[in-house]
Amino acid sequence: MKINGQQHRTIWPDPRLKFVHIIDQTLLPHRFESVQIHSVEAMELAIKTMQVRGAPLIGAAAAYGVALAMLYDDSDASLIAACKDLLATRPTAVNLQWALQRMQTHLIAIEPKWRNINAWKEAAIICDEDVKLNQDIAQHGLKLIQDLLAQQSHTPSQPFNILTHCNAGWLAAVDWGTALAPIYAAHDAGIAVHVWVDETRPRNQGASLTAWELGQHGVPHTVISDNAGGHLMQHGQVDMVIVGADRVTATGDVCNKIGTYLKALAAFDNGIPFYAAVPSPTIDWNISNGLQQIPIEQRSADEVAWVQGRLKNGEAAQVNVLPEGSPAANPAFDVTPARLVTGIITERGVCQPDKLASLFQS
Amino acid sequence: MKINGQQHRTIWPDPRLKFVHIIDQTLLPHRFESVQIHSVEAMELAIKTMQVRGAPLIGAAAAYGVALAMLYDDSDASLIAACKDLLATRPTAVNLQWALQRMQTHLIAIEPKWRNINAWKEAAIICDEDVKLNQDIAQHGLKLIQDLLAQQSHTPSQPFNILTHCNAGWLAAVDWGTALAPIYAAHDAGIAVHVWVDETRPRNQGASLTAWELGQHGVPHTVISDNAGGHLMQHGQVDMVIVGADRVTATGDVCNKIGTYLKALAAFDNGIPFYAAVPSPTIDWNISNGLQQIPIEQRSADEVAWVQGRLKNGEAAQVNVLPEGSPAANPAFDVTPARLVTGIITERGVCQPDKLASLFQS
Repeated sequence: MKINGQQHRTIWPDPRLKFVHIIDQTLLPHRFESVQIHSVEAMELAIKTMQVRGAPLIGAAAAYGVALAMLYDDSDASLIAACKDLLATRPTAVNLQWALQRMQTHLIAIEPKWRNINAWKEAAIICDEDVKLNQDIAQHGLKLIQDLLAQQSHTPSQPFNILTHCNAGWLAAVDWGTALAPIYAAHDAGIAVHVWVDETRPRNQGASLTAWELGQHGVPHTVISDNAGGHLMQHGQVDMVIVGADRVTATGDVCNKIGTYLKALAAFDNGIPFYAAVPSPTIDWNISNGLQQIPIEQRSADEVAWVQGRLKNGEAAQVNVLPEGSPAANPAFDVTPARLVTGIITERGVCQPDKLASLFQS
Repeated sequence: MKINGQQHRTIWPDPRLKFVHIIDQTLLPHRFESVQIHSVEAMELAIKTMQVRGAPLIGAAAAYGVALAMLYDDSDASLIAACKDLLATRPTAVNLQWALQRMQTHLIAIEPKWRNINAWKEAAIICDEDVKLNQDIAQHGLKLIQDLLAQQSHTPSQPFNILTHCNAGWLAAVDWGTALAPIYAAHDAGIAVHVWVDETRPRNQGASLTAWELGQHGVPHTVISDNAGGHLMQHGQVDMVIVGADRVTATGDVCNKIGTYLKALAAFDNGIPFYAAVPSPTIDWNISNGLQQIPIEQRSADEVAWVQGRLKNGEAAQVNVLPEGSPAANPAFDVTPARLVTGIITERGVCQPDKLASLFQS
């Protein structure tokens, strides 16, 4: 995506293959800044603290983390330890596991002295593949939006209203994004889309990242509290919901940022199509019951207590919104059962949640 | 309720009947401070800016607003203008209309020179009645909790988990509250209740007011983002939901703080009892379709943009969480259709939503 007229990905290797650049997403929307990651430990910290976040991006980041480990120690033990430590950074998004398994399987079969260069190469391939997956999702999603528009006989003066939760835009991937990729494609194709952006407490990825991304690309949008979507749906102000996912089961249960389930319930209750945009590395073919089998990350209560923003003078600051002594809990994801999901938008096309396996086997 | 060992209501007249004291709820939880309201215009502003809020309390505040108007001008014109202007402050809670109609009907029949003293008297009666209504709600709600506990065969080590949205505690009423009244009664009766407190964006009445109230009274509680409740319900961590209401239709549709509908959907989806605690002045007997007929207040986008809290040094501050140029929308209430409501807790007892009329006619 272009930021201030310059082409950007969310992660890229230094040309000398000695370190990796990432966009520090904890500073957005108030500062756009890249930082250098020089070691696997630094990459682990960047993933844990969510300087990089979003299921596809943490897969790519983990792959580069392995490359950084191989730069300093190309032994079997180093490879295995790096994959183990990177895997432990965050439990829910399956892309992390997918990317690390791929890196480990690929590199363990290679003579140690060739591992470093091959690790950088494989990480770059993973990134390029991610971009391609998202471009394909964009096209399938665009077709879906066009079909829905045709059905709903919108007048040209009415925008097509899409609600999204959290950030599954280019910042969550290497480029383009998953849920937002069809929206960018529709906007670029001249369709009058308008996006309702759930602010997505506690970390506000909707307000901080999605709204900023859409603004940079010129896509009309309005930020709402996470509480507002159901009301808008009851009053005909939402034509479609598109979210990303951190893990989707073989049976189509969608695990995504906490609160997604509530929006799916409201969409279902109001007959509004609810889609998850999911590249295949996000599908966990080994599990069939999302509610029972997907580990849900419990993050720090401080993320609920402290809200980040800027003061009237423009300075970045955090304010605590809790009374002294009130504890908080912070489950970071929830699972939307397949029965509430209209369809999954993948690089292979769009299918009903229970048809995922046949889509990918065909 | 006792605050720092001292008995408090949320609103009380000065003994000389020249002005009214209110607790400035915009300063909580970081400062507990009362302010004096000396004119009907000041009361209108206090209601608009939510220094006083909560359906029962704004009814009481409006009644005292009329008394303040009568203090300076006891004419018919003054009475009618005061009622009209106070009614225009907020559109959704029907208690405002109820209290103003009662004041106007009562006072218009009285000779002007007696209106002032009678206005103070009637406002005080409305307040005392509110306290009594809430005490009755507390007792009926306590019985309900005891019944649910008995059914669910909790072991003594498990707390009974109640989720609530926004603030319907003593701060929302003259005393005791509506949704929190049964919780205080249960806690005081020795039942191990634990409350999940939705923070309730955008104004954070859950985090700022409910958590603070519960903490002051020693009731165990945990603040969660508004996104988290559905996930907790899916995992058996919520035994019951109790919310307040700003207006309930004769047919049992519940209009309450934005986001309530999403929690009702999740409760319904998980077979968890969902109750609204509602004193009769909150029931609008004239309407039967909440979604079509209840006016929903649209508040300022600034409430979404600016989050209030305290900085690390303890100082109060607001931070803006939006990117430059991103607009926000702020519908303040939503309507939960009666089909999702297990029951209504009133001063007359507990009933199914479609049995409200017969409960009050009997």
